[in-house]
Amino acid sequence: MPQVVVDVVLKPEISDPQGQAVLGALGRLGHTQVTGVRQGKHFVLDVEGTPDEAALKEIAETLLANPVIEDVELHLPEA
Amino acid sequence: MPQVVVDVVLKPEISDPQGQAVLGALGRLGHTQVTGVRQGKHFVLDVEGTPDEAALKEIAETLLANPVIEDVELHLPEA
Repeated sequence: MPQVVVDVVLKPEISDPQGQAVLGALGRLGHTQVTGVRQGKHFVLDVEGTPDEAALKEIAETLLANPVIEDVELHLPEA
Repeated sequence: MPQVVVDVVLKPEISDPQGQAVLGALGRLGHTQVTGVRQGKHFVLDVEGTPDEAALKEIAETLLANPVIEDVELHLPEA
């Protein structure tokens, strides 16, 4: 069954306290090579039949993300 | 600056109530082509200098994920 991946990340100008907390913890543990962390959501959708790209784009942009504060990356399966 | 992406997903045998809730909502909205949803976390790390693959693997597998219930995908930047 084709799988569609949707990654939802906060827009760069939106503050990300979860990412900041992870970054602080990594620094305290000595992982100083990491200088920034942003945390988002990762959805894996099972799709029946041929994926309908327009419908999936609408799902990703309006139902899985808040377009006011979040950006979306839609990864369709290779044709 | 190189960016490393870490996707954390629940192992297939672990129940995912968030994914189930999204799947139910999609069905009620008529998006019946989607037959399964799993929700995970998506981290974007900024890394200074050449990424140290071993250290990043350790960060991903032991600090960003709970290896008892979650699987990790580490995406290093193209060399």
